[in-house]
Amino acid sequence: MALIVQKFGGTSVGSVERIQAVADKICKFKAGGHDVVVVVSAMSGETNRLISLAKEIQEEPDPREMDVLVSTGEQVTIALLCMALKQKGQGARSYTGGQVRILTDNVHTKARIQSIDESNIRTDLDQGRVVVVAGFQGTDSEGNITTLGRGGSDTSAVAVAAALKADECQIYTDVDGVYTTDPRVCDSARRLDQITFEEMLEMASQGSKVLQIRAVEFAGKYKVPLRVLSSFVDGPGTLISLEENSSMENPIVSGIAFNRDEAKVTVLNVPEHPGVAYKILGAVAEANIEVDVIVQNSAHGDSNDFSFTIHRNELKKTVSVLENLKEDIGFSGIETDDKIVKVSLVGVGMRSHAGVAAKMFEALALDGINIQMITTSEIKITVIIEEKYLELAVRGIHSAFELDHKIEEETL
Amino acid sequence: MALIVQKFGGTSVGSVERIQAVADKICKFKAGGHDVVVVVSAMSGETNRLISLAKEIQEEPDPREMDVLVSTGEQVTIALLCMALKQKGQGARSYTGGQVRILTDNVHTKARIQSIDESNIRTDLDQGRVVVVAGFQGTDSEGNITTLGRGGSDTSAVAVAAALKADECQIYTDVDGVYTTDPRVCDSARRLDQITFEEMLEMASQGSKVLQIRAVEFAGKYKVPLRVLSSFVDGPGTLISLEENSSMENPIVSGIAFNRDEAKVTVLNVPEHPGVAYKILGAVAEANIEVDVIVQNSAHGDSNDFSFTIHRNELKKTVSVLENLKEDIGFSGIETDDKIVKVSLVGVGMRSHAGVAAKMFEALALDGINIQMITTSEIKITVIIEEKYLELAVRGIHSAFELDHKIEEETL
Repeated sequence: MALIVQKFGGTSVGSVERIQAVADKICKFKAGGHDVVVVVSAMSGETNRLISLAKEIQEEPDPREMDVLVSTGEQVTIALLCMALKQKGQGARSYTGGQVRILTDNVHTKARIQSIDESNIRTDLDQGRVVVVAGFQGTDSEGNITTLGRGGSDTSAVAVAAALKADECQIYTDVDGVYTTDPRVCDSARRLDQITFEEMLEMASQGSKVLQIRAVEFAGKYKVPLRVLSSFVDGPGTLISLEENSSMENPIVSGIAFNRDEAKVTVLNVPEHPGVAYKILGAVAEANIEVDVIVQNSAHGDSNDFSFTIHRNELKKTVSVLENLKEDIGFSGIETDDKIVKVSLVGVGMRSHAGVAAKMFEALALDGINIQMITTSEIKITVIIEEKYLELAVRGIHSAFELDHKIEEETL
Repeated sequence: MALIVQKFGGTSVGSVERIQAVADKICKFKAGGHDVVVVVSAMSGETNRLISLAKEIQEEPDPREMDVLVSTGEQVTIALLCMALKQKGQGARSYTGGQVRILTDNVHTKARIQSIDESNIRTDLDQGRVVVVAGFQGTDSEGNITTLGRGGSDTSAVAVAAALKADECQIYTDVDGVYTTDPRVCDSARRLDQITFEEMLEMASQGSKVLQIRAVEFAGKYKVPLRVLSSFVDGPGTLISLEENSSMENPIVSGIAFNRDEAKVTVLNVPEHPGVAYKILGAVAEANIEVDVIVQNSAHGDSNDFSFTIHRNELKKTVSVLENLKEDIGFSGIETDDKIVKVSLVGVGMRSHAGVAAKMFEALALDGINIQMITTSEIKITVIIEEKYLELAVRGIHSAFELDHKIEEETL
């Protein structure tokens, strides 16, 4: 008998019928002899409805009251799901974030979880009940309602699993697992049976939107095995765990992530002396613009080009920040490009395998794709290329690393 | 400077525009130098929307989860109202029933308030904030969300006012006060400046739906002056207070209430011996049927007719309960009539004035209206008549007691 935390997102509980289907799924699991704690999001559309009500009143709604408002979304779901479970004869009890004392800091609309009091949950589980907890929300030490920010329900689920030392935290979504890459871009993309937290983090931060990054970090930190599954199709999903896949020769790479939302900014002929990079990025950060890839190549002479990527929506703002620095720093100009895409190859296996980068670049060269920027980490190689080559690049790399091979079958 | 509790119902906060109008009203009051605590209902339609979601899942929804569900309605309103107040530059803070510790018993969907912790409210008021509390809801001693039953927001407002020893509890509704009778039935009906709790209770229990009976009882018990006002039209409303109106010769009667929802049941030829009335009403009560007027006239012989009124919806059920008793009690039959109406004349003044009943019956006789049942209390005379005579009866009595006279002007 295992203790499982299951999280169902907004689409999975988007209507009465779907809530009933989720209740069926939970009952089936419970019938298998497991203890089940469920974490749910607001019904799809509900959070947006509430936010637009707020925005009709205040352009920038008061954060404390915003949390009071939007937290009702999950509260509706927990009640309806418990009713559906009871209707099927399964004892159940709902808890808001405050009731199960998901204690957070007091940063409204993006609070961070500090602790969870699991005593009520334990009592209910001991009495055979399914416990249904509102995701996304908590309470600060003064009893104010807080929320974790969008997608925070994943984090709630992991936090509950960590507090209960659950055997597994299952995240039900509208995809049936983590793929080697986006199947819409590369139709030989394959569901991964297993992936490590590090890889998942790189995949997520590179644009693979299956799981919230914070949830993965949290799961890694508290060693909670995470599993991504489909709410709609039965299947094993993808297990995200601490251990590298031990049942077979570990593949060198796990997947390819990409992100179309970025734009590239190049500051031309930056004089080469200490503190210049700080001056540029400090000003950008102060304007609350998040920088992703940063590349500087100090090769030639006493000045060089400094490039970085930011979200496309921030391009205008970034340029105006930089223009204010021009005189002070003494660079010659700014070049921007919002027709770029970032492609990353991810895999813990590449740590011990030489030649991965070479193979990736070879695949791109074979397709005649020019690489504009390169950065690497221990388990990731990222390139910036022209946006129009995205599909070509992903398919080429996918094939070069034989990611479409069904490794499971080969090792049988 | 006074401390005022203001309660706004669902229609008053039924849209973003209305919420903004309520915020204006509150700001105006606050600008007058008063401390203001606001209690609000769910936006009109919202509670029904939530209930129908629940009923799609469970025909008789689990009461605990029902409370978790419907309490979100007021939570949405408190957040939006606080945003509207802040948008107008007025500091404000919202509290759910649980957050302001409106402690209730654990009878879900119809809990009763036991205590309120007013410390948070006091702190906010001291800092110049308007405090906005979710009506209708509370928490039991174990932290479960409870609700007070429909219309319970009035009761919440009075309870908050009592806990704070507020100077006045203002209930904003869609009517501008308590009237001598329903203006839709009698167009010379007049708004009362003042009415006593006792009178208001009789008016309310007789069908005048301006205020929830529980709220009036509560206000009377804790000596909270209540005022009924319109959300939409400025005006003094009607003050409901402990003291009889002292500024003038107290009128003999205050108003006429009526109720069309009742049906009459007569049990024929009930043998006259002790315990029979108990047997009949005990069985009815056990079937959860509420009995209103009861009349027994022990005049003739060793058996007599026993009549009472119940809600029309319960008529069928009542008859089947009675039929089961027929053999045991030995009555001869049951007569029912659902074409009756109850009309009550209410006024604390009638305690010290003889002939009030005679004058009322005279008014009915003049219009040729037959009286089927009569009951009286210290401050009320009730008759049951044929439904078709309702308007005629109300207008006749209204005129006989000169209720349409503008007494205020006469005494100037």
